[in-house]
Amino acid sequence: MTDYKRDITIDYSNVMEEAVGPEHGISQGELELLRPRAAEVHKWLAGLKEKGEIGFFKLHEADTTKIKKYAARVRERYENFVVLGIGGSALGASAINGAVGRNFAPLLTKRKRDGYPRLFVADNIDPDNFGQLLSALDPKKTIFNVVSKSGATAETMSQFMVVFGMLEKKLKGKWKKRVVVTTDPAKGVLREIVNEHKLDSFEVPPNVGGRFSVGSAVGLLPLACAGVDVDALLAGSARMAERTRSDDITGNPAYLFSAVMHVADVKKRKPMVVMMPYSSRLYGMADWFAQLWAESLGKRTTRGGSVVHAGQTPIKALGATDQHSQVQLYVEGPFDKIFAFLEVEKFDSELRIPSVFGKRPETSYLAGSTMNELLNIELQGTKYALTIHNRPNLTIKLPEISAHTVGQLVYMLELSTAFSGGLYDVNPFDQPGVEFGKNFAYAMMGKEGYSGLKAEITAKLKDSKRRTVE
Amino acid sequence: MTDYKRDITIDYSNVMEEAVGPEHGISQGELELLRPRAAEVHKWLAGLKEKGEIGFFKLHEADTTKIKKYAARVRERYENFVVLGIGGSALGASAINGAVGRNFAPLLTKRKRDGYPRLFVADNIDPDNFGQLLSALDPKKTIFNVVSKSGATAETMSQFMVVFGMLEKKLKGKWKKRVVVTTDPAKGVLREIVNEHKLDSFEVPPNVGGRFSVGSAVGLLPLACAGVDVDALLAGSARMAERTRSDDITGNPAYLFSAVMHVADVKKRKPMVVMMPYSSRLYGMADWFAQLWAESLGKRTTRGGSVVHAGQTPIKALGATDQHSQVQLYVEGPFDKIFAFLEVEKFDSELRIPSVFGKRPETSYLAGSTMNELLNIELQGTKYALTIHNRPNLTIKLPEISAHTVGQLVYMLELSTAFSGGLYDVNPFDQPGVEFGKNFAYAMMGKEGYSGLKAEITAKLKDSKRRTVE
Repeated sequence: MTDYKRDITIDYSNVMEEAVGPEHGISQGELELLRPRAAEVHKWLAGLKEKGEIGFFKLHEADTTKIKKYAARVRERYENFVVLGIGGSALGASAINGAVGRNFAPLLTKRKRDGYPRLFVADNIDPDNFGQLLSALDPKKTIFNVVSKSGATAETMSQFMVVFGMLEKKLKGKWKKRVVVTTDPAKGVLREIVNEHKLDSFEVPPNVGGRFSVGSAVGLLPLACAGVDVDALLAGSARMAERTRSDDITGNPAYLFSAVMHVADVKKRKPMVVMMPYSSRLYGMADWFAQLWAESLGKRTTRGGSVVHAGQTPIKALGATDQHSQVQLYVEGPFDKIFAFLEVEKFDSELRIPSVFGKRPETSYLAGSTMNELLNIELQGTKYALTIHNRPNLTIKLPEISAHTVGQLVYMLELSTAFSGGLYDVNPFDQPGVEFGKNFAYAMMGKEGYSGLKAEITAKLKDSKRRTVE
Repeated sequence: MTDYKRDITIDYSNVMEEAVGPEHGISQGELELLRPRAAEVHKWLAGLKEKGEIGFFKLHEADTTKIKKYAARVRERYENFVVLGIGGSALGASAINGAVGRNFAPLLTKRKRDGYPRLFVADNIDPDNFGQLLSALDPKKTIFNVVSKSGATAETMSQFMVVFGMLEKKLKGKWKKRVVVTTDPAKGVLREIVNEHKLDSFEVPPNVGGRFSVGSAVGLLPLACAGVDVDALLAGSARMAERTRSDDITGNPAYLFSAVMHVADVKKRKPMVVMMPYSSRLYGMADWFAQLWAESLGKRTTRGGSVVHAGQTPIKALGATDQHSQVQLYVEGPFDKIFAFLEVEKFDSELRIPSVFGKRPETSYLAGSTMNELLNIELQGTKYALTIHNRPNLTIKLPEISAHTVGQLVYMLELSTAFSGGLYDVNPFDQPGVEFGKNFAYAMMGKEGYSGLKAEITAKLKDSKRRTVE
């Protein structure tokens, strides 16, 4: 049963030259020129999907029974669910929980949270921050979900080691039921540890990369535990998969998004895309998108090895808040950005502004309206201001914020990212540029086999001239 | 008594051509060329300071007695302190509380918070989010701090009206002691309301603009209530004021920061500056900086009226987290960014990684080290990776995260921003580009005197061709 009225839509009127002029706007002809390339990329993606090389296309077909069963047990017995992960292992759960979970859970009693635990996503190795979080939670009432596909992620493994040490000390032999691991089904050190200690575990399919993994147990387990309807989320993704079967770039919402961004970056010199939800709940989605877009498209070479230094920089902003922070720059600064708004047509709550403070012109125009109206009028105002200042902007409209609409958005942006990889002719599924920093850390932390690199780095750092202001 | 050992410092070795090559790096000659202009700008700022036209220069000289007294009363009686504000009225308090306040306060008992209330900053008009926050707090135990210099900010006034309505209904006549207002000493509708209802209030000095106001009651009142040592904060700013008296751009840390960013933007085509603290606690400071930089420098015209569309785009990132999100793009993507790291030399806590999981190469290199070491080694790795890939980066080093070092940072970045305004020859203290969106909202919300604009906008919107994907 598909409810088409709940489909998300895209309004791209304001990226076209009719709205923002030929220098900064896109012409119909420029979109048409992309069609042959789009057809090729479409075929390439279809091949990756059919051969099973890339797995995110089909995550919405998976069975969630085991996840929901585990979540039901957690809801009965625990107060807190802590994800230990970083990047793709953390951002998706965090973003979707922000959108459709209980944002103020830490302030609510268990009953007001409908019995669901509070979800925390520990996505950094800041000793102050991580230490404070651990000391604020009762380990007896807490489940720790260690998420790393490879098991080799230094940040996540060091978090796990600290937590393991703490649980062993405080709970003795009983700690094992407090840990659940999400990792590769067969390979890696985390899977070994699961087997050795007989820990609860879930699987990341080998053909699903970290930043495309929110629809797997990586995202679904924490979300189900926090009370998110994961079946509705996947149904949303399935619906978007159904809507994105054609290679028609003006009919397929995912491809349209890619095509617009590509022309903007390559032809109209917009090296930045600002994703700006007008909804605090959707702010995390902009953060999640920023990882997807940056890590997938920011590449030194094409798939054939030509040096291109590709990649549009994603920037997250929040409406209406950033009207009082970034919009001055957006409206008057350089013409180097394109904007993607997330608009919510119907919020869950309606907040009416009461008629107080008497007949003052500065407040009485607000009285009797709702905050909902004010927020959406401000969004229209920002769009209008950008448009008349020749700044291209499009709007992704969500009829409401629900697991279903968010599931649509997730799949749409994942597919857009993959498709954009094709348009730029880069590999959207690897991340060679982060290896260097990893190896640096391995070397300097004294990992086996890295002593040569350590010597090399140390020598180079010693030679370099320091300039400081002290 | 000044403790010089706690001074923040800047290492700019890696922005120079010796480190990142002549195409992307800055030469000593390029810095020298700026000196005459720097001397002029220095004089201009000195004039604004002396004549009292711009007030942030002297905020650290103010007496905080009244603020501390009010805060002591709040600590005795209340559980929650909620800032109602947006942009400059919210970001500073939020950022500094994140840095030196109690980040996990909502999870802690009053005793574990040393009796200080929990601080919330409501900086948006999202009906779901704002509604949830209000319903999660007991109004009898909550102080609401309404912050708007002009009193005309639609978002803040609508928040206040909703809160006023709620308090009147729930607390009848007793609501007045639950509200404290921070606004202009004499002008505006908020001051009128303060006088009419005899509300507690604090003043924003008329010569201090919103984004430069964190050192006034705008920031200090909520911070003092949350238990931040506001005197140490101001002492830090005073210390930085002392260190930034000369016009020597390689000796004055604020001017050095500006000079580097200016050459990077204008000469080396780096339209983006990424501020990336390697500390979760300092992440909010990047957000605060982003407002300061964007709204001050993003300008259509010079002070003389020539059209320039100036402004470098500030981007916030978080280490180590964003190594798994943005660093791929930073290292391999276009050469369009300069980086400013915030490095913490000594964290408050030390988290040791225990020796668990036996002799596995993937984990044993971590055992026995601390998370502190790992985090700072990752920072060194990111700097090194950027540098060898010819991406200019500088590092602001904080010996520790304290009210004193954060106070230094605040003043340094405020002064840098003002100085950069001078280098770009734009007015860093106005924001003409946000007026348009404001007027749009006034018109569409039906404010008196805006019906002509409403008709004009409605006609224009009706005429425009819509293009959608549905």
